[in-house]
Amino acid sequence: MAFEYLTNLPLEDARKQFLDTLQKEGFGPKKETVPVFEAHGRVTASAVYAHISAPHYLASAMDGIALRASVTFGATETTPVVLRSEDYTVVDTGDPVPDGCDAVVMVEEVIHQSDGTVKLYSPASPWQHIRQIGEDICAGEMILGSHMTITPAAIGSMLAAGVLQVEVLSLPMVGIIPTGDEIVPPTADPKSGDIVEFNSSIFSAMVGEWGAKAKTYPIVPDRKELIRAALEKALSECDVVLLNAGSSAGREDYSAQVIGELGTMLCHGIAIKPGKPAILAHQKDKAILGVPGYPVSGILVLNELLKPLLESWCGSEKKVPAKCRAILARAVVSGLKYQEYVRVRLGKVDGKMIASPLSRGAGVVSSFMKADGILIVPQGLEGYAAGEEVEVELLKNPSVLDHTLVAIGSHDPLLDECADLLHSADPSQYMSSTHVGSMGGIMAVRRGEAHVAGVHLLDEADGSYNTAFIRRYFPMGGVNLVECVGRTQGLMLAAGNPLNIRSLEDLTREGLRYVNRQKGSGTRILIDYLCKTRGLDPEKISGYEREEFTHTSVAAQIAAGTADAGMGIYSAAKLYGLDFLPVCMEQYDLLIPDSAMDTPMVKKLLEVLRSDIFKTRLEALGGYRLENPGTVREHF
Amino acid sequence: MAFEYLTNLPLEDARKQFLDTLQKEGFGPKKETVPVFEAHGRVTASAVYAHISAPHYLASAMDGIALRASVTFGATETTPVVLRSEDYTVVDTGDPVPDGCDAVVMVEEVIHQSDGTVKLYSPASPWQHIRQIGEDICAGEMILGSHMTITPAAIGSMLAAGVLQVEVLSLPMVGIIPTGDEIVPPTADPKSGDIVEFNSSIFSAMVGEWGAKAKTYPIVPDRKELIRAALEKALSECDVVLLNAGSSAGREDYSAQVIGELGTMLCHGIAIKPGKPAILAHQKDKAILGVPGYPVSGILVLNELLKPLLESWCGSEKKVPAKCRAILARAVVSGLKYQEYVRVRLGKVDGKMIASPLSRGAGVVSSFMKADGILIVPQGLEGYAAGEEVEVELLKNPSVLDHTLVAIGSHDPLLDECADLLHSADPSQYMSSTHVGSMGGIMAVRRGEAHVAGVHLLDEADGSYNTAFIRRYFPMGGVNLVECVGRTQGLMLAAGNPLNIRSLEDLTREGLRYVNRQKGSGTRILIDYLCKTRGLDPEKISGYEREEFTHTSVAAQIAAGTADAGMGIYSAAKLYGLDFLPVCMEQYDLLIPDSAMDTPMVKKLLEVLRSDIFKTRLEALGGYRLENPGTVREHF
Repeated sequence: MAFEYLTNLPLEDARKQFLDTLQKEGFGPKKETVPVFEAHGRVTASAVYAHISAPHYLASAMDGIALRASVTFGATETTPVVLRSEDYTVVDTGDPVPDGCDAVVMVEEVIHQSDGTVKLYSPASPWQHIRQIGEDICAGEMILGSHMTITPAAIGSMLAAGVLQVEVLSLPMVGIIPTGDEIVPPTADPKSGDIVEFNSSIFSAMVGEWGAKAKTYPIVPDRKELIRAALEKALSECDVVLLNAGSSAGREDYSAQVIGELGTMLCHGIAIKPGKPAILAHQKDKAILGVPGYPVSGILVLNELLKPLLESWCGSEKKVPAKCRAILARAVVSGLKYQEYVRVRLGKVDGKMIASPLSRGAGVVSSFMKADGILIVPQGLEGYAAGEEVEVELLKNPSVLDHTLVAIGSHDPLLDECADLLHSADPSQYMSSTHVGSMGGIMAVRRGEAHVAGVHLLDEADGSYNTAFIRRYFPMGGVNLVECVGRTQGLMLAAGNPLNIRSLEDLTREGLRYVNRQKGSGTRILIDYLCKTRGLDPEKISGYEREEFTHTSVAAQIAAGTADAGMGIYSAAKLYGLDFLPVCMEQYDLLIPDSAMDTPMVKKLLEVLRSDIFKTRLEALGGYRLENPGTVREHF
Repeated sequence: MAFEYLTNLPLEDARKQFLDTLQKEGFGPKKETVPVFEAHGRVTASAVYAHISAPHYLASAMDGIALRASVTFGATETTPVVLRSEDYTVVDTGDPVPDGCDAVVMVEEVIHQSDGTVKLYSPASPWQHIRQIGEDICAGEMILGSHMTITPAAIGSMLAAGVLQVEVLSLPMVGIIPTGDEIVPPTADPKSGDIVEFNSSIFSAMVGEWGAKAKTYPIVPDRKELIRAALEKALSECDVVLLNAGSSAGREDYSAQVIGELGTMLCHGIAIKPGKPAILAHQKDKAILGVPGYPVSGILVLNELLKPLLESWCGSEKKVPAKCRAILARAVVSGLKYQEYVRVRLGKVDGKMIASPLSRGAGVVSSFMKADGILIVPQGLEGYAAGEEVEVELLKNPSVLDHTLVAIGSHDPLLDECADLLHSADPSQYMSSTHVGSMGGIMAVRRGEAHVAGVHLLDEADGSYNTAFIRRYFPMGGVNLVECVGRTQGLMLAAGNPLNIRSLEDLTREGLRYVNRQKGSGTRILIDYLCKTRGLDPEKISGYEREEFTHTSVAAQIAAGTADAGMGIYSAAKLYGLDFLPVCMEQYDLLIPDSAMDTPMVKKLLEVLRSDIFKTRLEALGGYRLENPGTVREHF
């Protein structure tokens, strides 16, 4: 019943067909007239000629006196010429040179006498210090050719030449139609099942970045005749229309039907992931794009199809995105059927550029915000192995990456506070952190992929933290354990503790829903250890296999009532107003390799850790014990 | 009386004092709250935390049915599980997962039976195809740190997290006050002595380019109390105030007085040219810049002092302008007293980058529009010799220079038409032309500095054009003479010929004012030749030494009544509605070196010359004879 009408056209083919068809249909700018003072950055539609000359009169180029040069001939140091007031006119810079005068003498060379005469000790040459008519621009001259971008100086030149209006190429207008019964305008308090409509805000900003205008239409419910009416209206007002969501093949997806009725369908389904249900169509010279509903799918479809279309508007060349080579931190497995776009974090550690894949969920818009680059896995390729060198399209200025502290390891909200304090103290420095658990952090430092790793690893043998693991994984040493904080671990419970959970033993109670952290995280090691020492069978804890990646996401599940209990730190429980059953105080430290210790970013990080403001921020988060944060506890 | 209070501070010192003082006084952004959907490109003032999780409910990640995973356990290809309608709920992507359900089965795996039951051939695992609460963003998480630029994806992330308003750093507001009795708003019909006020439009556009806001105040006449009131008002409304003109030392220059009264003067007079009378001052944390009146002076003062000040607003790093190395086409002589800014045209000819200095007049705003770069001659240096390699700050994208046809030689308006037609036909190609006369063009081609030179050089021996000169200056050959046009030379005379000039002999008449072309131009060679053959003594022609550089500027002088006659081409006379006394038809050709013949730009130029539209454009200009334009007349 579904997917039958979806094609799987390679991106290059789809794009070429889309652009070629629209070019053939006459997609492109009209001419419009705008005031010159508003024309900055616009492109001229036709050549601009001067109305008047600039200057438009003989003008004095100096402060001084205007006169006929011949009256000064013969003046010397010993035989000055004396001029009566009727022989000269006092002029300032820019004043018109009076009729009959053909020279200006600078004020510094004019000796005023008490009787109103002036003395000159040297002759003036004809036309000296006079700006000739048209010195800058002559009337009738071409000031700017057609298809030229209007700069600030071009604005000045046109106004100087009496040109007040200029014919420019119109900017493309992109209409954005959000659709869907479940879609609501942005709100801080959505109901369950409400999907907040933020795609149009993302798309508007992208369209603006590409020099086009965006117009967002009201949200249209999933009714075919309403979608049809909205598309018809947008097509009459815009050059490109984005019909958002409803381009897949669900129960209420009328996009393809409506687009097919009002325009000519070019393709439905492109071999890219995310973004495959995109629709490309046109109505004469107007472009229609059916954009999938997931934000990351939408962003990619706009990047790959709308951006080149807008670049073709004035025939300007396609801008090639900046790229870099990077070592892949983890393997990326991709299907053979699609060209896949994997968002990656980039980090430059010890001279090597490392790419770490981010969440691949099409709904995870924050991953696009965090991404530094895009790794494209071509159609027909199964992916890349960890450690392989790959080419990455850059989303950020590469110089930013040179000044970014790369933190990979255990999650704690204090890392975000560090990043904020570090960048605030020095806006040229950044910190990016990726949450892969304590063990993941140790491995990242070992592979030379991180400047710092947050670790809190309990040694089951003696109850100590971190040092045993570091000795095991860094037998040759070369790393530093920097003290950070003590923090309270415990059970996070629904507010008011309705199930009356009093100990870890209660977790095995029938019907209780636990939510766990991922394997390799320090918190998972802790709960595994606690179960073992207390003789609890994890198999008996319902939900023990449900894994989340951060303390906050565990807390979020409990706060929303989809779980009853989970192990985590006090600050996460406090954030969500949850009840908290303290279990132990653990040491959360930072592992930093020798090679990173002297970088400006690590130095700044240690300063931040020792600062009063860091202490204040952690007090607000709650559940932390600070003794000597930022000091090297042990060098291995 | 004048200039005494002008200092001559080196630019670096002046800039440092200006920036340091303002930083100490607290020059910088305030916080302001804006709607998130309008926040693109703004910089966060404080860290942004999520209000709600995204998703904020357990959401289906697929179209299909939601159910409790345990009801599917045991299903296989041979023993399918049959579910009654009360065991599952049909869901679309994004729908909430009903209470009690913990898995979604994709629509493709669900076999609907006619009795309303469904069959499944494989078991579901718990939490499959469900988007967990906070999968994208968890409530309470830091979404963005402070001092981060807001991208389209960040807008999406904030809206997804229920953040509708964001605290950002205010943009600097730059007030612009134009002053001067002679200053009038832009007009196509100014009176003699009116100076059209276009500086504020240039400055506004520059300020906008640098990410700040500009506010232009009405023109203030040269009265001290009015200037004081305007400055007071602007200081109360803006972060930076530009007081334009009146910063020199003429009759009515109140800027310095008023600035000194309302603020603290840091310096008046900087060792740069143009731009030396600039004033730097402040009123507490507000910056005041007294900007000289000449547009080029103003542009340079803004570039060198306002731009770094605005970059210091958020503490961002000073952007270093792109530079290139180039061979200087002509010598640049500079005074020792100032750091001089010489606008240059750049051209890449035969692999060499050539810099040709443009007009150095501070009033010639069109020179800034035409400039591709700035050559800075440091204070204390006398200049550079022709042929010297110099460093040039780029004003244009260097890739544009790779695709620019460099024409240097004799002036004809047809060159502007060629440039327009060439760029219109292929927007990736440009043509720049510099008017230095026919002999200048020949020398430029000989030095390898031009792709093409317009030439019309009369051989006095036999009355033929161009070939004799080319043989003399290119004894080894290697150049092509490409046919362009025949054009009518003659005497341009005031409309209606009020002086009744009937022949060249009339030019020696008492009181008649001639205006000439510069030495080395083909037209000058022609008039010199005509005088010689007719036995006329140039000494007897009044104004013979008054030199203009183009046909149009000669015509402009006659049209304005500052001269009575001048030699030039028919199209220039026609443009100004002048009377015209034809003298001869001359051949205007293009000299093109072998090395340039195969470049895409020259090929395109020859196509343009052969096109119908070129013919149409020249017919409109008038006075041209086209036979075989664009064909090689002779190879040397």
